[in-house]
Amino acid sequence: MEAHNEQAAWFTFEVVARDGRARAGRFLTPHGVLETPVFAPVGTQATVKAVTPAQLEEIGVTLVLANTYHLYLRPGHQVIAELGGLHRFMAWNGPILTDSGGFQVFSLAAMREIDDDGVTFRSHLDGSLHRLTPEKAIQIQEHLGADIIMALDECPPPYDRAYNEAALRRTHAWAERSLKAHTRKDQALFGIVQGGVFPDLREASARFIASLGFPGHAIGGLSVGETKAEMYAMLDVVTAVLPEDKPRYLMGVGTPEDIVEAVRRGVDMFDCVQPTRLARHGAAMLYFGGRLNLRRAEFTRDPRPIDASCDCYTCRHFSRAYLRHLITAKEMLAGTLISIHNIYTLVRLVRDMRQAILEGRLEAWLQVWYARREAQTASSGKGSSSSSR
Amino acid sequence: MEAHNEQAAWFTFEVVARDGRARAGRFLTPHGVLETPVFAPVGTQATVKAVTPAQLEEIGVTLVLANTYHLYLRPGHQVIAELGGLHRFMAWNGPILTDSGGFQVFSLAAMREIDDDGVTFRSHLDGSLHRLTPEKAIQIQEHLGADIIMALDECPPPYDRAYNEAALRRTHAWAERSLKAHTRKDQALFGIVQGGVFPDLREASARFIASLGFPGHAIGGLSVGETKAEMYAMLDVVTAVLPEDKPRYLMGVGTPEDIVEAVRRGVDMFDCVQPTRLARHGAAMLYFGGRLNLRRAEFTRDPRPIDASCDCYTCRHFSRAYLRHLITAKEMLAGTLISIHNIYTLVRLVRDMRQAILEGRLEAWLQVWYARREAQTASSGKGSSSSSR
Repeated sequence: MEAHNEQAAWFTFEVVARDGRARAGRFLTPHGVLETPVFAPVGTQATVKAVTPAQLEEIGVTLVLANTYHLYLRPGHQVIAELGGLHRFMAWNGPILTDSGGFQVFSLAAMREIDDDGVTFRSHLDGSLHRLTPEKAIQIQEHLGADIIMALDECPPPYDRAYNEAALRRTHAWAERSLKAHTRKDQALFGIVQGGVFPDLREASARFIASLGFPGHAIGGLSVGETKAEMYAMLDVVTAVLPEDKPRYLMGVGTPEDIVEAVRRGVDMFDCVQPTRLARHGAAMLYFGGRLNLRRAEFTRDPRPIDASCDCYTCRHFSRAYLRHLITAKEMLAGTLISIHNIYTLVRLVRDMRQAILEGRLEAWLQVWYARREAQTASSGKGSSSSSR
Repeated sequence: MEAHNEQAAWFTFEVVARDGRARAGRFLTPHGVLETPVFAPVGTQATVKAVTPAQLEEIGVTLVLANTYHLYLRPGHQVIAELGGLHRFMAWNGPILTDSGGFQVFSLAAMREIDDDGVTFRSHLDGSLHRLTPEKAIQIQEHLGADIIMALDECPPPYDRAYNEAALRRTHAWAERSLKAHTRKDQALFGIVQGGVFPDLREASARFIASLGFPGHAIGGLSVGETKAEMYAMLDVVTAVLPEDKPRYLMGVGTPEDIVEAVRRGVDMFDCVQPTRLARHGAAMLYFGGRLNLRRAEFTRDPRPIDASCDCYTCRHFSRAYLRHLITAKEMLAGTLISIHNIYTLVRLVRDMRQAILEGRLEAWLQVWYARREAQTASSGKGSSSSSR
């Protein structure tokens, strides 16, 4: 625990304003201050797909996530360490967050066998055999050198009570081992709350994880198949327990609606692959939720931008007709331009919410947001937008 | 011819300095002044593949080429005209050049049959039947709205004398028809010199095309299989005939060496797909010619940029190791970052030559360039670069 206490000098989290349960904060990292709430695009293989760091900066991105599983397998954490760490490697000088690798082992690896000590898996790239333990996950992340790193956890199916109980014991034991293994003072190690859709497990998990003294807390295992009502209920339980003076990070979320509902419940950090993944499939995200499928023929001669109220690079310069042309012609620029818009949309959303919190008008902001969301949904029946779920 | 004379107000070409036969010029277009010599990257489908207009601007690109054949087939010249023309469509506010479509009909179409009136072909996209004539090529290009447009020509195999003679008659007749068909005053229509590797045909073609009073002249049918010595000999013949007060455009070239040799012979404009095509295959172009195949395992831990003397965005931020990682991981960003470097390399080359011409030191510049080229080639035997041919 000493190491952690020394870390605290770097990773001060200051709540600068509250509005209801929502907070606007400032989280100090060695690579800059994160103003929260914050949305992080995902740079799985040390690149946010199709977007340069300069473009990320222009979008207003402040935090980027990279995946430990992928970088461990290729090019290898030691190679990245040799080259000066992840920041230099991917030329992103702002804060970086790495996950523990666990989620990808469970979802991507060719084979995985979990035990109380860790998990054995085969690479999805070449079938080679590997072993990940809490200690190893920390060691890899120390080599990568992100500002914020994650404890290894297990993310079970949300509705299986027995599985969740067993997984929670493991996740908690691994959290303690992760803290012990962590040596770098310039990294904040976050513990992860699990517990499926079970309020009592979630509450117990939040209490236990909070008791360990992490400089920040993540909420895992949500947006993995449960209903929105269940997700929000779990957020209510967990945010009521987690300490106010540490940042709260909802992993793998998400859609504008989920971000809105989580911020109002006091969540500070988000990441999601959706903006870039949808972009590569020709779908533009909308500020009030829902999407435009730009592949559709109705956009062939549409001179409008994706969103007339958006001032991202893409919306300031390009028509839906041009974007549809790029998609149809299989041009890489489609992925770049739509990714820029989609990431911007979520960055803009959390920035607008932060401003509303700072000015104590979040409730009014939410009313307007939901009213315009409904208006959009109503018009999309006969128009061009489609709901996201 | 009246239409052409009125055009001349827009398309003044001023030779601001000469050094030997090389020239530094300024060519006025409705979308800005082109400082020559100039290199244009190719935006086949109204996008320079994987690079945004903002990135092109940062690279220092001033002129972009787009392909009439592709845009005619998809999304259609009328769609682009409806949307305000090519500049607005692709959000490139600088000068644009379109080719006539002929070269792509001959090289890409599923079927083509040529006669004295024009060419019938089937789309490589859907097999649909189309007819391109000199008049139609002008009409399409007037709809697209580029600043510089091209007369339809025929580009025969370079060594077939009889074919070249017949094709030349056609190309010349089509040049006259193109001039007659052209109505837009805000576009410069260039005539194209052909003639294979035959000095007498090239000279006759240059004389004929020059006599028609085009505001600029293109040299076609080179870099299509002939030797470098033959290409340079043809440039000697043609540049000796073409008027000094009009820009000269060498189509589809190319490599640093070819550009260097053409500029010293008085050529002013270039375009080539190589920078972006090579980039998508993981090859970085070098300023002194040759390439780095960044896919190679030797770059896995190489912290150096592609070229330490290059100050493009890619070389200022990214290592060979990172670029190799992106290629290996099939990340789109590889194509973007290497394209930026490759285009920059040719833009830098012509800019450096222009400066040398302005300062009357082109011969010295050439000596240094060739000396460093040789040094690079010598070291590449045991090192990391490879020759381009």
